[in-house]
Parts: sequence; structure tokens; C-alpha cells
Amino acid sequence: MSEMNEILLSLTQELRRGTIVLSVLSQLNEPQYGYTLVKNMEDKGVSVDTNTLYPLLRRLEKQEILISEWDTDGSKPRKYYKRTEFGDAVYLKLLQQWREMTDSMEKLLNN
Amino acid sequence: MSEMNEILLSLTQELRRGTIVLSVLSQLNEPQYGYTLVKNMEDKGVSVDTNTLYPLLRRLEKQEILISEWDTDGSKPRKYYKRTEFGDAVYLKLLQQWREMTDSMEKLLNN
Repeated sequence: MSEMNEILLSLTQELRRGTIVLSVLSQLNEPQYGYTLVKNMEDKGVSVDTNTLYPLLRRLEKQEILISEWDTDGSKPRKYYKRTEFGDAVYLKLLQQWREMTDSMEKLLNN
Repeated sequence: MSEMNEILLSLTQELRRGTIVLSVLSQLNEPQYGYTLVKNMEDKGVSVDTNTLYPLLRRLEKQEILISEWDTDGSKPRKYYKRTEFGDAVYLKLLQQWREMTDSMEKLLNN
């Protein structure tokens, strides 16, 4: 890998890292399994690794931003996640921060 | 600090962290002192701590993305930074990544 690509990869990962929680929260107004969540996000051009996603979902549940339930209807039990009321509030505030940040960035980038 | 504020502060910092390099690079097509850089960015609504900025400038210089020069005209010498040609290329690529990322985010957030 060239030095340029290496630097860019690291900077791009840094850019994306900060947006993962916002992305995930935006999708969990309705209950979703980890797997369908990854697929839905990918369809919209946002890829997230399951090795990042699963620990993140557990962390957000611990913080009471998400709540999980087991679906035992299928051949093997699956856990689905959705936002709590507290999670709705966190999501809306974080979305507002995102809007403010992208607005400021546009001012910087267009000068 | 309430739990909500604590969580939001941490998530917001995570959001901003990834954009610092892009912000800084966007301003350094022309040579700037660290101090004026901070002021100019603040005027556009992007605040960056000098404890974050100065090590970052040194790191980017080491990566040959920025070049620095000493101005010894004043009463005390001051260092100013600007993008190298390599830095121009890195900046343009990173800007493109930013555009792609914000586009995908908008798709996620507006669904």
C-alpha cells in the first residue's frame, strides 16, 4: 500500500468512526436484528463491520439508549434492538450536533 | 453533569474528532500561524483546542502533508504552516471522502 493510501485510509476511518453511533441510532426507531441493520445501512452506502457493531449495540444497551428483546420464533433465537425513549432524546440531540457540525464544515470548506 | 449530557458530550467529541484534520487542511492552502488558524476556524464555528492542534500540525509535517517555516521578523520567531503538494492531493481525496460520507449519512438520516 502506498504512503498516500495508508494515510488516507487512516484519516477516512477516523472520519467515519465518529458517525457510527448516529448512523445506528437513526435506524433503530424500529426494532432490527444486527444482521438486517448492517444490510439496511449498506444499502444506503454506509458500511459497518459486525465486529464494531455488536459491541456498540451492547454498549448502547448498557447506557439505556437501546433496548433489546429476544425473538425465539425462528429455529434459533435472535436479538433485536430499538431505541428507548431516552435513546430518542439522545438521537435527536446528536442529530442536531451533526447538523451544526456539517454546517460549520461547509463554511470552512467553501472558503 | 447529567448522564444525558455526559453521553452527548462524548458522542459529539467523537463526531468532531474525525473532522479536525480535514478542517485544518482546508485552511492551509495559505501559510498560517497556529494562533491565527485557531482564530480563523473559530470565526467559522469550528473550535479546536491548541493542545490538539499543535501536536497535529507536527504530525502532519512529519507525514509531509504540511511544511513549516519560521518567521523571524517579529520580536519572537513564529512558525507558520501550509500544505505541500502532497498535502494538496491528500486534502482533495479526503474532501471527496467527506462528501461521499455526508451524502450517505443524509440518505440514512432522511429515511
